[in-house]
Parts: sequence; structure tokens; C-alpha cells
Amino acid sequence: MKIIVDAMGGDNAPDEVVKGALEAVSKNIEVILTGRGEDILRSIEKMGLKELPRGVEIVNATEVISMDEDPLNAVRNKKDSSLTVALNLLRDDRGDALVSAGSTGAIVSGATFVVKRVRGIRRAALAPLIPNNAGGFILIDCGAYAECTAEYLLQFAFMGSYYAEDALKIDSPRVGLLNNGTEPTKGTPLQLEAYKLLEKAGQDGDLNFIGNVEARSAMLGACDVLVCDGFSGNVFLKSAEGMASLILTELGNMFTKNFVTLLSGMLVKKHLRKIRARLDSDKIGGTMLLGILKPVIKAHGSSNATAISNAIRAAAAAVDTDTAARLQTNISRMKIDEADDNM
Amino acid sequence: MKIIVDAMGGDNAPDEVVKGALEAVSKNIEVILTGRGEDILRSIEKMGLKELPRGVEIVNATEVISMDEDPLNAVRNKKDSSLTVALNLLRDDRGDALVSAGSTGAIVSGATFVVKRVRGIRRAALAPLIPNNAGGFILIDCGAYAECTAEYLLQFAFMGSYYAEDALKIDSPRVGLLNNGTEPTKGTPLQLEAYKLLEKAGQDGDLNFIGNVEARSAMLGACDVLVCDGFSGNVFLKSAEGMASLILTELGNMFTKNFVTLLSGMLVKKHLRKIRARLDSDKIGGTMLLGILKPVIKAHGSSNATAISNAIRAAAAAVDTDTAARLQTNISRMKIDEADDNM
Repeated sequence: MKIIVDAMGGDNAPDEVVKGALEAVSKNIEVILTGRGEDILRSIEKMGLKELPRGVEIVNATEVISMDEDPLNAVRNKKDSSLTVALNLLRDDRGDALVSAGSTGAIVSGATFVVKRVRGIRRAALAPLIPNNAGGFILIDCGAYAECTAEYLLQFAFMGSYYAEDALKIDSPRVGLLNNGTEPTKGTPLQLEAYKLLEKAGQDGDLNFIGNVEARSAMLGACDVLVCDGFSGNVFLKSAEGMASLILTELGNMFTKNFVTLLSGMLVKKHLRKIRARLDSDKIGGTMLLGILKPVIKAHGSSNATAISNAIRAAAAAVDTDTAARLQTNISRMKIDEADDNM
Repeated sequence: MKIIVDAMGGDNAPDEVVKGALEAVSKNIEVILTGRGEDILRSIEKMGLKELPRGVEIVNATEVISMDEDPLNAVRNKKDSSLTVALNLLRDDRGDALVSAGSTGAIVSGATFVVKRVRGIRRAALAPLIPNNAGGFILIDCGAYAECTAEYLLQFAFMGSYYAEDALKIDSPRVGLLNNGTEPTKGTPLQLEAYKLLEKAGQDGDLNFIGNVEARSAMLGACDVLVCDGFSGNVFLKSAEGMASLILTELGNMFTKNFVTLLSGMLVKKHLRKIRARLDSDKIGGTMLLGILKPVIKAHGSSNATAISNAIRAAAAAVDTDTAARLQTNISRMKIDEADDNM
């Protein structure tokens, strides 16, 4: 299996990306690194290696898409950017999946424009695994598209549900609609309409729809798949991240207050590290972009080598499960009208 | 000063509400309790008191609005409910402010329908103080209305800013717009339009608008007032609450794992309690409903006596600062057209 890695994407590119990619190479995983050949080779040298290790290939790309460029224009105009080259390789079957820690917008637009969506899927969606008090749950969409229709949300529910079955090995995942209350009358017209579509899919036996779920209960294990528009999903995720960061910083300060608290901190160090690790996006490694014909994984912008290597392993697993094929087979259940828009 | 308290609202009514109200009574604060007289007297008896303490008045109301009733219909039809009676007393100047831990929807609709909004204010908004790594910030709206227009958001920004100045004593509060990125091009059409209105208010010197703010940075002190529609505000708040609850539970478990961690937990107990307290909604006491002619405070549904007593003190402080009067004076800055809808 071959995973294409955008070596120039992310805050710590190319060094950490290259390092992570090399860590991920194994009997079953080869990688193609796209980006400025010289820079990539220099990163490899920094790791103390004299030559390109077995299982690693470099495809040269002279340009880089920065975080503040208009996503679609960047992919279209910078034809020799590390991301565009990587997307072309994926489309041309030169690799089986793609990992990038670059601009989310560019990855979403680029994957849609170059690799294409599964036919009938209206929008791709970012579906991270969010830690909670159980094994975690899939949030979909966490920010690929800020604006959504009820049909998109229906499709997100199917995508998230299949993905949870395939990747998390959850039987009949409990699908909840993110809302500001549990009653079916809650939310904006978007949630009201989506509720009806999801309820019907539940009654038809296509989904295990459990109704509206509030943000707080989702974080405490109420569902396996949380469906929402990308704007709300972004707020949900970033608010939780902010609160986690706030508390963990306060705890850090607490344990350094004086000798007694310092001692106490040392005694629970191992356990604290476990809690941090569970909330750490590096350990999770990457967010699946669902609805695209082939697996595309967005790694966190601040990814270090470990995060990149985990993202590559997640990409390899996604190739094995092939959720896209399942979407294609079941697309008729996910459409509310026959018009097919291919943006 | 006299604060009207809905004695039957909330999960722990009437006992905890009555207890909290009696705790709040002081030289400057008297209370009127509305609800079933017998039940209220029984709660007072349970506290070991033989008669109604000085500064406490009971106004009988035979009905109770439950959490699952349609808010506006409940207020309109249950004319003798503890909340409706309380609202009528407030409108008729029998008291200076109102506190209720009852249904949020009923309080928002009821306050709008009975007490009325400040003329020109399109929608009332719930504005809780959210703890962060600084002194906290005002979130507005956190769920009074799920659907908003850009003009509502502009008005929320003014209301939040005045409130932060009046209640938190912050000079020139930094007002941010909740968005899924900091660039002015981010968000749905609602955020795009609101951004322009807020930018103009900033240029005119009416607001200290600092631009778009992501949920994570807001939690880490990026702004003093975070403006959003009620749906996103609800997601923002509940997601953070869920994460806080998740981590604090994990910490609790950690400290009981074995003798060493138990000891360690005892050593930092005091400090942990401080962190918990800072995140505890009971300590904050209540959420101001801004845009109504007189102060209305929504206490948390699960309020205990301490939370109610804090909410009553917050109500008294709100009477002193009188943000509504300031809104009335400055209303021309907050309107984008002259049509006046009074829902």
C-alpha cells in the first residue's frame, strides 16, 4: 500500500512531516513525499540518514500553498504545489490515500476538484474522532463547509455511521443530531428539516437515529456519531479544545505552586499524562475527509512527526475499509431528490 | 430594593429557591416569592423558621410552568403560574428585577411578552459570564433565539459591550464575532454580514470590535464579549461544559486509583476546589437576559440555594447599573433600518 504525503503542508513542514512519514514506513506501508526535493532531502539528512530509505519516494513540486490563500484558486492556479501534485497522484492511482497537514480549505476544495466526490454525495465532510468518557465519537462535519442543507446533514449521518462501523468497529452506531435541546421542535429550520429526514432513515432501518443531542451530552457519551453543519461543528470542537487547554494549564500551574503540590504532581504524573494523551489530537493523528472517492486525511496544522505517522497509519486503515465504496453502493438511501450537482 | 423570585422554577424548587432567597435578604435586598403559598411556607418551616422573616413577601400563584411546555403559550395561558405572576409584578413596578430558574424559553418569551423589550431592540439575548484564563467574558446570545439576523448580532454586540462595562467594569470591552476562522471572509452569510456591521460600528467609535474570534481563542482570553447566534452560543457553552465535566471526572477517578494518588489528591484538594469553583455555574449564579426593560435573570435549572442567592445579588447589581436605560439612549446606533417590530 502506498500513501501520498504532502511534505510541505503544516506548521512544522517539511522536517516533522518527513520524519513522521519515515516512521510510518513498514512492510505494508510505502510513502510518496511531494514537495521541494532539496528541502525534503535536507530533512532526511537532518535525521542522520545518508540516502532515501527503502519504501520512500519523492515527487518534486516547486510551489507551496499557504494557509491564507483562497483554497480553490490556490489548488487551481498553483499546479505545481505540493498539495496539487499529491492530489493528482492520488487521482491517477499512483497512491492509495493522501495525508496533508496543510490548509483545510485547500485540502477540501482540492480533493473535491481533483479527486472528486462519490457520485451523489453533495459535500465532503471532515469527520474527526472526538475523545469522550467512552471510546470517543465521530463528529461530522467539523468545518469543511460552514453552510449546509438538510440533505447534506442526512448524508453526513450516513457517512459518519458507515465510517464508525468501518473504522471504530461499532455495531449500529448511535447517530445524534447536534441541537440546542433534545425535543424534535428544537433548532433552526435546518435542524427541524434534518430531524425529519433522519427520523425517516431511522424508521426505514437505514440508520440508528437516536434524535437530537445537546453538546454537553455528546461530550459525555450520548452518541457514536454527532451530525452537524460545519460551522457548529467547528464551534463544538474548538470550544471543547479551549476548555481542555484551560483546565490542563490551570492544573499545571496548580502542581507547581509549592513543594507540596509539586510532590503531589509527581505522584500522579503518569496518570495525568494518560488524561492529556486521551485529549491530544497528535495521538489521534488525523481527520478523515469523507465523501471523496479515495481516502484523504487532514492532519492537524501543528502536527509533529508522531501525529503525521499516526495519520499515515489511519490512511492505510481507511484504504482497507474503503468506506467510499459503501457510500457508492448505498447512495440511493441518502438522496432526497434526483438532481445531481457536481460542484 | 426588591427582587421578585419565581419560587417554583427549577429542579430544586421550591426548597432550594426559597432557602437561597432567604439567604440573599439583607439590609438592601428584599424579596417577593411567587408560587403556591402552602409549599413556600412548608419550605420555610423546613429551614427551622416559625414565621416569614422580615424582608420576605409571598404572592400566591397556583400554577407551575413545566420545562416541556410551549414557552409562549404557557405564559399566556397559565395566567396564575409562578412565572407569569412574577412577570406581572415586575411590569407593574412591584419589584425591581426578577430571578427564575424555570424554563429558559418561558422566561425569554414571558419577559418579552409581559415586561417588553427596550424599544428598537429586536430580540432579547441571554448573556452569561463564561470563565476563562482571565476574568471571564460575556457570551451573547447563548440560546434565547436559535435563529438570528445580522442586525440582531449587531445589537447583541452593543448589549454585551455595555453590560461588560457596567457589570464587569471593563473599559472599552473587546468585542469579537464567533467564527470558524479569523479572516473576514469566514463563516456563513450571517457572519459575513454581521462582520460588516460590526466593523462599521468599530470605525464609528461605537464599539471596540476586534474581528472574528475562534471558539478556542475565546476560551483562552481573546475577547471580553463574544457575539453569536443563540444556536452557536448554546453549542459553544455546552461543549465547554461537557469537556470540563469530562476532565474533572477523570481527575476525580485518577485521585482515587490507589493510596499514592489518593494522598496526592488530598494534598492538592484546596487548589482543585478553586479550579472547580471557577468553572462552577452555581458560583456565577445566573445569566442576564439583556434587552428587556427591567433586569431579568435566568438561574441554572439545577440551581441550589447558593446559586439562587448569587443570582439575586446579581439581579440587585443589575438594577443599580441599569443597562436597559443605556440601551434606550443609544438605540439609534444599533439599528440598520427604521422598521420597528414588536413581537
